[in-house]
Amino acid sequence: MSGSCFGEVFRVTTFGESHGAGLGAVIDGVPAGLEIDPEFLRREMERRRPGGGTAGSTARREADAPEILSGVFEGRSTGAPLAILIRNTDQRSADYGELADRFRPGHADLTFLRKFGVRDWRGGGRSSGRETAARVAAGAVAKLLLAESGVKIRAGVLSIGNVEGRRIDFDAPDANPLRALDPDAVPAMLAEIEACRRELDSVGGIVACRVEGVPAGWGEPVFDKLDALLAQAVLSIGAVKAIEFGDGFAAARSRGSANNDSPLSDGSFASHHAGGVLGGISNGDAVEFRLAVKPTPSIARRQKTVDAEGRECEIEIGGRHDVCIAPRIVPVVEAMTAIVLADLSLRQRCARL
Amino acid sequence: MSGSCFGEVFRVTTFGESHGAGLGAVIDGVPAGLEIDPEFLRREMERRRPGGGTAGSTARREADAPEILSGVFEGRSTGAPLAILIRNTDQRSADYGELADRFRPGHADLTFLRKFGVRDWRGGGRSSGRETAARVAAGAVAKLLLAESGVKIRAGVLSIGNVEGRRIDFDAPDANPLRALDPDAVPAMLAEIEACRRELDSVGGIVACRVEGVPAGWGEPVFDKLDALLAQAVLSIGAVKAIEFGDGFAAARSRGSANNDSPLSDGSFASHHAGGVLGGISNGDAVEFRLAVKPTPSIARRQKTVDAEGRECEIEIGGRHDVCIAPRIVPVVEAMTAIVLADLSLRQRCARL
Amino acid sequence: MSGSCFGEVFRVTTFGESHGAGLGAVIDGVPAGLEIDPEFLRREMERRRPGGGTAGSTARREADAPEILSGVFEGRSTGAPLAILIRNTDQRSADYGELADRFRPGHADLTFLRKFGVRDWRGGGRSSGRETAARVAAGAVAKLLLAESGVKIRAGVLSIGNVEGRRIDFDAPDANPLRALDPDAVPAMLAEIEACRRELDSVGGIVACRVEGVPAGWGEPVFDKLDALLAQAVLSIGAVKAIEFGDGFAAARSRGSANNDSPLSDGSFASHHAGGVLGGISNGDAVEFRLAVKPTPSIARRQKTVDAEGRECEIEIGGRHDVCIAPRIVPVVEAMTAIVLADLSLRQRCARL
Amino acid sequence: MSGSCFGEVFRVTTFGESHGAGLGAVIDGVPAGLEIDPEFLRREMERRRPGGGTAGSTARREADAPEILSGVFEGRSTGAPLAILIRNTDQRSADYGELADRFRPGHADLTFLRKFGVRDWRGGGRSSGRETAARVAAGAVAKLLLAESGVKIRAGVLSIGNVEGRRIDFDAPDANPLRALDPDAVPAMLAEIEACRRELDSVGGIVACRVEGVPAGWGEPVFDKLDALLAQAVLSIGAVKAIEFGDGFAAARSRGSANNDSPLSDGSFASHHAGGVLGGISNGDAVEFRLAVKPTPSIARRQKTVDAEGRECEIEIGGRHDVCIAPRIVPVVEAMTAIVLADLSLRQRCARL
Repeated sequence: MSGSCFGEVFRVTTFGESHGAGLGAVIDGVPAGLEIDPEFLRREMERRRPGGGTAGSTARREADAPEILSGVFEGRSTGAPLAILIRNTDQRSADYGELADRFRPGHADLTFLRKFGVRDWRGGGRSSGRETAARVAAGAVAKLLLAESGVKIRAGVLSIGNVEGRRIDFDAPDANPLRALDPDAVPAMLAEIEACRRELDSVGGIVACRVEGVPAGWGEPVFDKLDALLAQAVLSIGAVKAIEFGDGFAAARSRGSANNDSPLSDGSFASHHAGGVLGGISNGDAVEFRLAVKPTPSIARRQKTVDAEGRECEIEIGGRHDVCIAPRIVPVVEAMTAIVLADLSLRQRCARL
Repeated sequence: MSGSCFGEVFRVTTFGESHGAGLGAVIDGVPAGLEIDPEFLRREMERRRPGGGTAGSTARREADAPEILSGVFEGRSTGAPLAILIRNTDQRSADYGELADRFRPGHADLTFLRKFGVRDWRGGGRSSGRETAARVAAGAVAKLLLAESGVKIRAGVLSIGNVEGRRIDFDAPDANPLRALDPDAVPAMLAEIEACRRELDSVGGIVACRVEGVPAGWGEPVFDKLDALLAQAVLSIGAVKAIEFGDGFAAARSRGSANNDSPLSDGSFASHHAGGVLGGISNGDAVEFRLAVKPTPSIARRQKTVDAEGRECEIEIGGRHDVCIAPRIVPVVEAMTAIVLADLSLRQRCARL
Repeated sequence: MSGSCFGEVFRVTTFGESHGAGLGAVIDGVPAGLEIDPEFLRREMERRRPGGGTAGSTARREADAPEILSGVFEGRSTGAPLAILIRNTDQRSADYGELADRFRPGHADLTFLRKFGVRDWRGGGRSSGRETAARVAAGAVAKLLLAESGVKIRAGVLSIGNVEGRRIDFDAPDANPLRALDPDAVPAMLAEIEACRRELDSVGGIVACRVEGVPAGWGEPVFDKLDALLAQAVLSIGAVKAIEFGDGFAAARSRGSANNDSPLSDGSFASHHAGGVLGGISNGDAVEFRLAVKPTPSIARRQKTVDAEGRECEIEIGGRHDVCIAPRIVPVVEAMTAIVLADLSLRQRCARL
Repeated sequence: MSGSCFGEVFRVTTFGESHGAGLGAVIDGVPAGLEIDPEFLRREMERRRPGGGTAGSTARREADAPEILSGVFEGRSTGAPLAILIRNTDQRSADYGELADRFRPGHADLTFLRKFGVRDWRGGGRSSGRETAARVAAGAVAKLLLAESGVKIRAGVLSIGNVEGRRIDFDAPDANPLRALDPDAVPAMLAEIEACRRELDSVGGIVACRVEGVPAGWGEPVFDKLDALLAQAVLSIGAVKAIEFGDGFAAARSRGSANNDSPLSDGSFASHHAGGVLGGISNGDAVEFRLAVKPTPSIARRQKTVDAEGRECEIEIGGRHDVCIAPRIVPVVEAMTAIVLADLSLRQRCARL
């Protein structure tokens, strides 16, 4: 009920803070017999890591070596919970020491204090971006399960600030340092990031995700619709402020005759406005959505804020922070998408007699 | 697990189809002692009803008289589940008879069949807009609970098709037939709806919601963030394709120095870009979001589709359908928002020693 | 979280009080395509009814006609929640009027008040035995689902007070008025009941249940063991105070060499001490357990108690009450067992790749 | 859904096997601000350890040093999940090597294989008694939370085989090597254990538990009754075959006039037959129950069984095993009881307006 569990059958529970001993995930409900490739898990963790293939990210080096504590025997899942631990190796909470008595604008410092009455000032604690390491670990296992059904999840960066790509190529992101969907836009995007850095500022971005191979029938009617659960999953990633499926907000300006996707005799559709979901259930088309990432709230520029006594003051946030988080969120979006789909794929096993 | 339950403490389970005996909601977890005003419940149901204060909606008359079956004694909740039943009185499934063997584009006919292997061709069954009656009934109880905390939820229509209001007044919607936030835009909006109707077409719209009075601290870190749960709740309403909080997609084009809301000494904020949520927890500011409603998929115009054997054919959907669903979705958005907040308000009781 | 939901996949939510409008169950997660025989449902309700084939039960006549509100189309489940409503037709709360200010010993009047701060004095409200009608309705659907797997659940009365049967025949209960497992013990049991009635007293009993046809593999390791969930399910029936599986308490006095059941080459076991469960998972043997039913707390004899102000006083409980509830609990035990097994049978679908 | 999560608000997820890297628990929902005494946690782990204050237990030495990975800052809970890891230090799976192709009678080897299609032959895996270490760790945190409400949980051994104590002193168990409630019975109990050991056999026992300080009002009506959840919790411990509350099975032979506990003006009761629970809700009296522990299934004596191919064969189980598990189950029963009560105490916060 405290919100660290997600999923019904493929149920992920995460724990850990940015500056404690470590963080991890326990996945209860991995079907027995799944081959768990530790090398794939390691690669996924590497993709999430600061500097793990992205430009513009913090220099903080984390090994992020995931240790599988349980649930695997002779290379395969046993049906027991699969627990993964990632030790924190770089816990310089001293970096944050001077922030202990001032609230960082745009951060969760203030709301966590109001909620819990406790201040863990060591760099964000549970609300730190580092929390996503546990999601990526669990997502890697979900991807392995989905691969058995031929499901392929890929995300990439559509835009950074006002620099938008002109084409979308889901093979491109892994081959460029910003995980851009249009590799030709990378120079302009890098320039935008560099400009922000010089101005001691940060910038937002938009990420797109496409899932291929989802069979028709996944997703539950009413509250646990495929798109509703994806929305929860993606909005639960810090810094994400919006999501849209298929044409999304553009559909609100469209007409029914243009927006309806006519089914064809081969099982495909004449158009793709719905983003692969009808009535909350996958229709066999690719599932497509976009999400908005806000600018990194930690900026070096001086900002107005209040201190622990509520007095107005100013703050300058030192340390090294990502200018734009969008590229680093890409693997997290894939992970959360994988967790939702893995869960719904198992739930579908119970839909019919 | 089949997705008809929502919420952890204030847990709503809905049932019912558009053309069966009736539909309803069971709310387990209403705290004992809450005054249940049946007149308020009736009024909320009336607001959702086709023609219940909105123009451009179907002429189908439904009494929608909610019957409280349990959980209330001498006008107050007892702590037992509060069950509400709404009988279907107008079940002319014959209207849909001719559709039994052709799939309506943009509808869930196809995906339900693929999921369950069963076709309930009586007008949408569980995926019908009528399903939202149960949500509104449960939402009315949630609103009563939230009123005890001073929380006030209001939604309205921002735009219909390309007609957008110029100002936002959350007192306006209940006083105009389109629930528009800008009453001055109503004539142009009505004209847009009329144009679509003439062209046997439909149109989408955007709905905005503002919640005032939410204290700082509601929402759970990680997966059950306030915005994540609202996203699930709102996307679980049929025809909603997108949601954004605060500046939403615009934040992706913004810079940190502009997007961060600085806290002030009086507990308020110097700006409102975040939409009242930081790190998934309410910050005491108004919670604000917008959602996109797709054009009604049922249009009278001839469309291409496939039949039960998968052969391509055409379809003309008779009967009377809303040209634009956005105005009717307004009370449903409020209801789902109320259910999320009622649940999180109770969950907050367990956050601290 | 308020405890009116049970099960993970086959999830039953019940509502209703003894003296309100009615009670019922919503089952979310019935697989689509299951034939729902309304006549079977009606018969199961009839078995639970006061006087429904049992002697020694109250004369209160209830029609208990279950109405299926949703989830069934053309005789089969659709995958949507299956809601069942049972109207209360005999709501003479006046019978209980004089009890409004005195707590009945052995009843939940006092604890409900302490819990909720609200007193529903109309005959037990949610803690009334009538609440089990919803369980039996849901259990009937569970039995239909289990019948597809060849699972057969039968319960009966082992003993009433000190009168114990000498043999166990699970075909006997439906053919005698006390649902006794040994029909030869019925005369002595009836005499015991009659003696208690004359003395304005009540008496307890023991019920046994045997489930045949459960394949090996049902039940989840750790917390949701088959026997653990059955224990919760059965102890959740009012008046049940104990449960034992297989040899139960006798196993505590036994030795390992005597208590271990050796598996045989044909998949059966050389003995049956375990009651069909090993490590919380069915072993393919019949699942067997016994439960203790306390004496009906409502007795006509004068008893000491306290009133609403906490002053000591006396109480005489009028009206007609079952002298021994054990026979009437038999169908409720079967229903709860069916709900647990239906749920675990569906959960087992997700255990393996 | 795979049964490694328990509780609604105070939600415990466990992981780990007897011969993997380690095991542990994640507790989501510990209220922020609770003082977490690591020394208390260590002491509770020590009580569970083989040889941790009990006679007749295996010689296997495990350090069982619990490491708190997250959720605690400056000695207090933060509201984030509290994860505890216990490394396995003694993983001599070779001991079990010869058992890899024969099923141990009375063990879960067979049922795990039937369920998951996977055989983890390293000494029981998830069904090993070692799994309870995670429960005890979580239970220690629950006890700390309950101590804030003045709740005190104590269990002890009533009988071993046919040797039963004559009096019950809940202060006695921690002062004798068998955790007996009657210290005078210890010599006879030790003799019974020694006799079994000589005969290469094992023996069962009965454990009793008393909880003092539970206020009236804990427990949820219907399915999540206090006794129902305790029954699930306790039966979920391996080797437990039965549970009874208050008079339990004796109540089935009793009469209402004898079994009803009359409330007194001071809030207490004239008798204690109910075991502190009425209608599934605590009545303010001490909560009391007893449970049956079966004889250790691992015995050195030659037994009949089948091998992996289903052929009948014999087996002799080497290694050192507890002759009687009852004394070692005592802290596990306390832990599970604490987890249930901690959860219900938090749930009670939402019962009233």
